[in-house]
Amino acid sequence: MPQKLVLGLDIGGSTTRAALISTAGVRLGTGLAGGGNPTSSGADAAAAELGVALRQALAAADPAAVRAGFIGLAGAGRLLADPVGRAAFDRAWRDAGLRCGYEIHGDALVAYAAGTAAPDGTVLIAGTGAIAARVRDLRLARVAGGHGWLLGDDGSGFWLGRAAVRHTLAALDAETEPSALGRAVLTELLGTARVESPPRRTTDRLVQAVTRAAPVALARLAPLVLDRTADESGAARIVAEAADHLVATLVPLRPGEDPAPIVLAGGLLGADNALSRAVRDRLGQRWPAAPLLPARDGALAAAWLAARTVDPDPDRAAALHARLLG
Amino acid sequence: MPQKLVLGLDIGGSTTRAALISTAGVRLGTGLAGGGNPTSSGADAAAAELGVALRQALAAADPAAVRAGFIGLAGAGRLLADPVGRAAFDRAWRDAGLRCGYEIHGDALVAYAAGTAAPDGTVLIAGTGAIAARVRDLRLARVAGGHGWLLGDDGSGFWLGRAAVRHTLAALDAETEPSALGRAVLTELLGTARVESPPRRTTDRLVQAVTRAAPVALARLAPLVLDRTADESGAARIVAEAADHLVATLVPLRPGEDPAPIVLAGGLLGADNALSRAVRDRLGQRWPAAPLLPARDGALAAAWLAARTVDPDPDRAAALHARLLG
Repeated sequence: MPQKLVLGLDIGGSTTRAALISTAGVRLGTGLAGGGNPTSSGADAAAAELGVALRQALAAADPAAVRAGFIGLAGAGRLLADPVGRAAFDRAWRDAGLRCGYEIHGDALVAYAAGTAAPDGTVLIAGTGAIAARVRDLRLARVAGGHGWLLGDDGSGFWLGRAAVRHTLAALDAETEPSALGRAVLTELLGTARVESPPRRTTDRLVQAVTRAAPVALARLAPLVLDRTADESGAARIVAEAADHLVATLVPLRPGEDPAPIVLAGGLLGADNALSRAVRDRLGQRWPAAPLLPARDGALAAAWLAARTVDPDPDRAAALHARLLG
Repeated sequence: MPQKLVLGLDIGGSTTRAALISTAGVRLGTGLAGGGNPTSSGADAAAAELGVALRQALAAADPAAVRAGFIGLAGAGRLLADPVGRAAFDRAWRDAGLRCGYEIHGDALVAYAAGTAAPDGTVLIAGTGAIAARVRDLRLARVAGGHGWLLGDDGSGFWLGRAAVRHTLAALDAETEPSALGRAVLTELLGTARVESPPRRTTDRLVQAVTRAAPVALARLAPLVLDRTADESGAARIVAEAADHLVATLVPLRPGEDPAPIVLAGGLLGADNALSRAVRDRLGQRWPAAPLLPARDGALAAAWLAARTVDPDPDRAAALHARLLG
């Protein structure tokens, strides 16, 4: 079978990543650009970042030779329902010299495929936010969670950071000595761990420091919690609760016994830390037969999904997945 | 003892209320103006509303005859630390023809005095937000909670409204039939209780409807929960949890047995509803010796606090309180 070129894109709120591969599993180009989420950045800005990533990935290839494209995008449904945004993406695609079509799917599908070639399974994603998805025949069948910081994202980086501040505020309300976590939160947000007298002054300054910034900026406090679970019961309790929340997000998507794989993705669950370990423990108890798989490179996973559209043979698809993402 | 005139003001985020009384307990004037919180409205706008309320209250009196003023204000500490804001309040005071001085204290003290003349006790306030305070010798000694919707206010109107939406989102995630509460939330925010197919479309529209408005607008959903506790376990569970949170806010301020009174104030706790009944039940179990007292008119309570500054005699103060707020 002759080698064909395919393109994959993984578009998130802060980065757009592209990968050009041959269907033999050779990476031929890579692109990296800024956030391309049409909901947060606007369709034109998103399409401009898409163009930058495409041109980088295609620098050493003939764009006309590319046979298929696959884009994983947070908020894909909203873009597909928006003719103006869709036209901007089409334009960026053509302007890069591409003549093939492309598919757009939710980024959760790409995160899933970054962990497994199995057609059926689930993915649990936790970074700044948190979402879970059920995949059937390599399509998103159902989604749970992902309601955003105001209404949900329980167990996410935002949630951990907010829990760290709430833990600190509780000590200030009780006029007890802040824990090591509380002192770290005060130092990070106020520049000092010293509690004023009366403590309510420090409370007011802490609340103001948080509310001056965007709510999602609380996610940058998550490492303060993750780094202290061994030494501090408060931090351990927060992480245990976050793990419970994340596993609960999966339950409606896997109500009973289920041997289908679970892919762990996102900045928090894709790394080795106290939360990802606690989540793995709980998943192993709840679904002992399910393989727990880390998500790898999203752009390569998108390129693999593109390759499947030109060659759906399952054995060759599995072999290509093992070569690209094994 | 000759009768003296004193002025009280209760300044909240959406209304400024003034009361002019004689120390014999006769109400001689009333004022009502827009929100006067210098933090949310700006000091100049707050001072302008203060001026409107003062002139109304003083319409039938000689301002020069007023002997004392007392202002209860959310965020009083921030105003006192802000010379520009303080100067704007001074100017409004003088421009109304007043020659006496005035004190500024937190609105929690006025809410407390609206329920009791006892010098020592606590107040629990729940409306859009939630806060508790310990009062000693009719001064705010300590405050707990009141951290705002992003970090706290657990059990508040905002919190109840958010819980109602989360309850609805959980049913959509599980693809189960929404409860009566869920249907009420969908009707309120989307104009119909019909769930689309797939349900994730309704989820996305619900999340968008909430995030388009200000977060505190969630508080307007609180009555949907309070009205359904008799018929629906989900609503009853939310209200029980809210009551637990509110009572927990008081605990650091009343750690042990404590016979001091508890004043219940704010739009939610000051009314008769499922939440205020649940809170009263829990307070009665936790502190059986403590009287539970409803907060009455805040402007009259502020005027009573002003009267105490010109005549501190405790017996006459208690008699005046009974006349004004009994």
